[in-house]
Amino acid sequence: MIIQFEPNISQESRQIVAEEMKAHKYKTTEVKTQKGDYLVGIGKEHFDIRKIGHLDGIKDIHVVSDDYKLVSSKWKVNQTQIDLGDGIKIGDGEFAIMAGPCSIEGEENIMKTIEHLKANGLSIMRGGVFKPRSSPYSFRGMGLEGLKLWYKLAREHGIKIVTEVMQVSQIEEMYEYVDIYQVGARNTQNFNLLDELGKVDKPVMIKRGISGTIDELLYSAEYVFSAGNERLMLCERGIRTYERASRNTFDINAIPILKDKTHLPVIADPSHGIGIRDYVEPIALASTIAGADGVIFEAHEVPDKALSDGQQTLSFDASSRLIAKIRKVLELNGSY
Amino acid sequence: MIIQFEPNISQESRQIVAEEMKAHKYKTTEVKTQKGDYLVGIGKEHFDIRKIGHLDGIKDIHVVSDDYKLVSSKWKVNQTQIDLGDGIKIGDGEFAIMAGPCSIEGEENIMKTIEHLKANGLSIMRGGVFKPRSSPYSFRGMGLEGLKLWYKLAREHGIKIVTEVMQVSQIEEMYEYVDIYQVGARNTQNFNLLDELGKVDKPVMIKRGISGTIDELLYSAEYVFSAGNERLMLCERGIRTYERASRNTFDINAIPILKDKTHLPVIADPSHGIGIRDYVEPIALASTIAGADGVIFEAHEVPDKALSDGQQTLSFDASSRLIAKIRKVLELNGSY
Amino acid sequence: MIIQFEPNISQESRQIVAEEMKAHKYKTTEVKTQKGDYLVGIGKEHFDIRKIGHLDGIKDIHVVSDDYKLVSSKWKVNQTQIDLGDGIKIGDGEFAIMAGPCSIEGEENIMKTIEHLKANGLSIMRGGVFKPRSSPYSFRGMGLEGLKLWYKLAREHGIKIVTEVMQVSQIEEMYEYVDIYQVGARNTQNFNLLDELGKVDKPVMIKRGISGTIDELLYSAEYVFSAGNERLMLCERGIRTYERASRNTFDINAIPILKDKTHLPVIADPSHGIGIRDYVEPIALASTIAGADGVIFEAHEVPDKALSDGQQTLSFDASSRLIAKIRKVLELNGSY
Amino acid sequence: MIIQFEPNISQESRQIVAEEMKAHKYKTTEVKTQKGDYLVGIGKEHFDIRKIGHLDGIKDIHVVSDDYKLVSSKWKVNQTQIDLGDGIKIGDGEFAIMAGPCSIEGEENIMKTIEHLKANGLSIMRGGVFKPRSSPYSFRGMGLEGLKLWYKLAREHGIKIVTEVMQVSQIEEMYEYVDIYQVGARNTQNFNLLDELGKVDKPVMIKRGISGTIDELLYSAEYVFSAGNERLMLCERGIRTYERASRNTFDINAIPILKDKTHLPVIADPSHGIGIRDYVEPIALASTIAGADGVIFEAHEVPDKALSDGQQTLSFDASSRLIAKIRKVLELNGSY
Repeated sequence: MIIQFEPNISQESRQIVAEEMKAHKYKTTEVKTQKGDYLVGIGKEHFDIRKIGHLDGIKDIHVVSDDYKLVSSKWKVNQTQIDLGDGIKIGDGEFAIMAGPCSIEGEENIMKTIEHLKANGLSIMRGGVFKPRSSPYSFRGMGLEGLKLWYKLAREHGIKIVTEVMQVSQIEEMYEYVDIYQVGARNTQNFNLLDELGKVDKPVMIKRGISGTIDELLYSAEYVFSAGNERLMLCERGIRTYERASRNTFDINAIPILKDKTHLPVIADPSHGIGIRDYVEPIALASTIAGADGVIFEAHEVPDKALSDGQQTLSFDASSRLIAKIRKVLELNGSY
Repeated sequence: MIIQFEPNISQESRQIVAEEMKAHKYKTTEVKTQKGDYLVGIGKEHFDIRKIGHLDGIKDIHVVSDDYKLVSSKWKVNQTQIDLGDGIKIGDGEFAIMAGPCSIEGEENIMKTIEHLKANGLSIMRGGVFKPRSSPYSFRGMGLEGLKLWYKLAREHGIKIVTEVMQVSQIEEMYEYVDIYQVGARNTQNFNLLDELGKVDKPVMIKRGISGTIDELLYSAEYVFSAGNERLMLCERGIRTYERASRNTFDINAIPILKDKTHLPVIADPSHGIGIRDYVEPIALASTIAGADGVIFEAHEVPDKALSDGQQTLSFDASSRLIAKIRKVLELNGSY
Repeated sequence: MIIQFEPNISQESRQIVAEEMKAHKYKTTEVKTQKGDYLVGIGKEHFDIRKIGHLDGIKDIHVVSDDYKLVSSKWKVNQTQIDLGDGIKIGDGEFAIMAGPCSIEGEENIMKTIEHLKANGLSIMRGGVFKPRSSPYSFRGMGLEGLKLWYKLAREHGIKIVTEVMQVSQIEEMYEYVDIYQVGARNTQNFNLLDELGKVDKPVMIKRGISGTIDELLYSAEYVFSAGNERLMLCERGIRTYERASRNTFDINAIPILKDKTHLPVIADPSHGIGIRDYVEPIALASTIAGADGVIFEAHEVPDKALSDGQQTLSFDASSRLIAKIRKVLELNGSY
Repeated sequence: MIIQFEPNISQESRQIVAEEMKAHKYKTTEVKTQKGDYLVGIGKEHFDIRKIGHLDGIKDIHVVSDDYKLVSSKWKVNQTQIDLGDGIKIGDGEFAIMAGPCSIEGEENIMKTIEHLKANGLSIMRGGVFKPRSSPYSFRGMGLEGLKLWYKLAREHGIKIVTEVMQVSQIEEMYEYVDIYQVGARNTQNFNLLDELGKVDKPVMIKRGISGTIDELLYSAEYVFSAGNERLMLCERGIRTYERASRNTFDINAIPILKDKTHLPVIADPSHGIGIRDYVEPIALASTIAGADGVIFEAHEVPDKALSDGQQTLSFDASSRLIAKIRKVLELNGSY
């Protein structure tokens, strides 16, 4: 059960509600986000919610049958839109195309990518500075210094930054330089990280776990929301299956299912979803027509020389062609 | 290695070629299809293929590095197109929309479906008369009598039939009444059935196995082709994964990968691929934009009363809306 | 619901029972096996089964909540034991060790294997004569002639034969030469084959599908049983997962689960279950201690020269060591 | 390549080696563990390692072809044994049985478990105080206070503690109260956590990821080892597959494969591996006979009242029976 409070609800009224819930054996969690205050109640008893609804300071009450509550579309009719400032928005009709290298490699790499984005009218750049790597001996990214350099150049050109945060201690040090914190597929169930991202006033994009279920992804989002941050996106990036012709199995089914189950924006990552450069385009287009609110893909000035996984990285030419096609699909989506 | 023979090649020349291949330790298989004669050689030695190329009666020679040969796009530049007669074609630019009930239920069900198809300008009807069912106590379809009735009504209205064949003995008894033999997901590696379908002069559509790999699907097609039938289609219908929010995981990656690896038409089955009525449309559109040569889906006059799986079956209204949208996507595909 | 008939039940009594069931909206299937006659009823209504129990000719009535009925342990308290004749039995305390080559290769191969079996006190030999192969160009086994040769030699030495049947037409031609029909992992849901094997008076061993569920395996057994053959075994042989360090993932969990759900003997196939020669032994021992009624594994006089998959095949020395260890585990199992 | 240094190697000699490696384009990582100093070199060039071997201060040099190095059995012939003090050891012939509740629930629960352990001659108790939970609204464990209470009681009775650490900040606060840090299945690729655990002077047990590969588990161990901690164990706890008859699919294959690939002790967790109380015993025995160095399972005084997952938790009676059987299997293992 989700109880939305009025902004001016008194402390006394909050308490009355909490006690009423307790009387019905509901465990309650107070949630205070950028957009409002909520009381989430977890319990099994059915009771007349009008008992609470008439109390002072109550804006609305929603009975949500899903196990996740705040991220469910069952209580929030409107799609969530995330405002990054400077007119850049994601969700609820605003489609986001985010591109950039796998790993941030240095000034030249950043500048060439920014030029490519601007030439195509894009305003969000992806790139890793903290890279999760299976082997401890692999390149783990440029780190905070890379992020600072990237931030400086990006800000000069009006570009927003989405990049992965790998641990709690990075949240604060990255704060000034990041526009969207990305939670990677290996951290989807790093619950401490999610808890802490819930306390931050910056948008978060959570990638689905390497073999995470759709429900687990929604639960992970519930962690962030219930900890106080409702500026959230979800990202389908392919799941692990037995098939080896592709690097992952992009779960296109997840797009319409997530769009139905949650009010949060849903982003598609075709680069990781299929993992083969030549096939990124059809997966990106498929995701777009299936209802995604955005795509995030890898592009590099010389993919074969990219520091990290170039095999799934588009050349700028291929990226430009893809962007043009996505826009045509968006037109088509808008036409019926 | 694939050696294409001239139509008029002499028996003597065939023998010379076969012996030359044998001298290089190649195992050879003679293949005689509706469209030509081939010799497929399996071996490892590299030798100068001009030795063979200059022989009488040789049209062309192709070294194919894939483990499957005849179905590979490495030797056949042109896409295969399957002609069902009456101007109805699949592949190489001709997109096929096939719809109908899960199981054929009787005259009324057939007639309503035919009317729906004709109202939407479609000409291929799907439906099961032999139904593979996990439990021996479930309804296993109307059988041959159902097929005969269906055939009679379909022919009266110029409708083609695609339906599943489950065992070798059915091939002959179904022959007169079927336009496309469908090999179901549980029979993808029923090699005897594939062998026998290779001897038939009717098109075959092979569904990917429940947890079959893309390569295994191509090998299964190679069985049919090498046994003599090159009027073949492949069908992606979702694979079995750990995810339970959908019935199967539709492998959208398989569409561009198959289109790249083989010259055969690739069909998408979104009904089984996601298994939930409300989400069939986005998966069908995604498949279309990703490059499929056709879609096959379930539609029924009253889905909730369908004899077999109504949960994944579209109403005729939903079907009509989907068909219209598919056509818009095809226009878009043609525009760039 | 399973109704066991007395051997001498009158036709009239059968009819009365069937009508009573029909009155409660149960769909009934008459089953006549080697061991008795049954009426299986599928329905949802709860009614007083004493209504039927008091009728003439009724031996017992069992309400079985599982979706599979005849193979369920819910009605049959005693474990099924399969008697192959000559004192060779499987199940209900009789553990079977079956070994032999992947493919039968010829007289020498057969004789060396028979000698190895006899030296170790074994009496069931495995081997393929019809081999299901992904590629049509691979060796598909010696066929019926190989089976006849094998049979001749095996009979001379008192050895029983278990071998795969791939299609309906082979059942009859193999009949005289086979002691256990094996249904391979690609045919677990070849329902026509299962139906026909239900009509045969020889034991059947059904392998779990490549990605079949435990329930699907039980359903497949229900096909054979309900068609009239209750001399049935099940075989766990590994499932397809994302892991590539082994060829399949042997599902050890399936052993205790199957032993609990069904009264049929459960066999383990460690050769396919892990697919790497050096690790076959621990998997065989693990299966034995986990409660399997037998193991079937590949052994060959020179594994590296085996015609089919030698990588998973034990040498005779390794096989002898394994057999000795299995017997020690059986002693231990018997001790507590 | 792994270069083992002599304890007294001079700084100068270290530098010479590092430069020699650099000259051959090897990237080097200096590793300083409880047991010695190493230089790990990652590179492709083949060169005469005697060039380095003759240098002062070099104990040994090993060329390791695996991608993981320090955890590979290719260089370290002897099995690793972990000494917890007070005569309690794991690995290299010392089998560890660890039992206890899913979550630590309070004094009574701790004391009853300790009594159960002591009655059965066990000395390591498992239990969660920080619980990773899919839903933010679930009970997340007693936290540090619970651990302190547990520690006090455990120490009084000579019991060692293994418990999960979920984030970097907990490492230090838990340090005094824990004997083995457990890395849970959701944190197997939490590389920052692994890095930090590499700096701690306490043993670490890493669980395999929910759908982690065997190689990924070894890489994760390489993180800890290369960061300085070689007192490491691995734990197979079941993987995520399509099968739903069990909670996870216990990968018994992983036991012999891991034992072959690494010198680290391998522990089996049958409670999570199958997830059903009645079947924990056969999986535990199977793991033991397959070569595991220990088992860890859940036991509770009243499983049905356990705070966390009671469904997979043994009663103390069942636990005692299992322990006795494991010991018989160990005797058998020792006998051949």
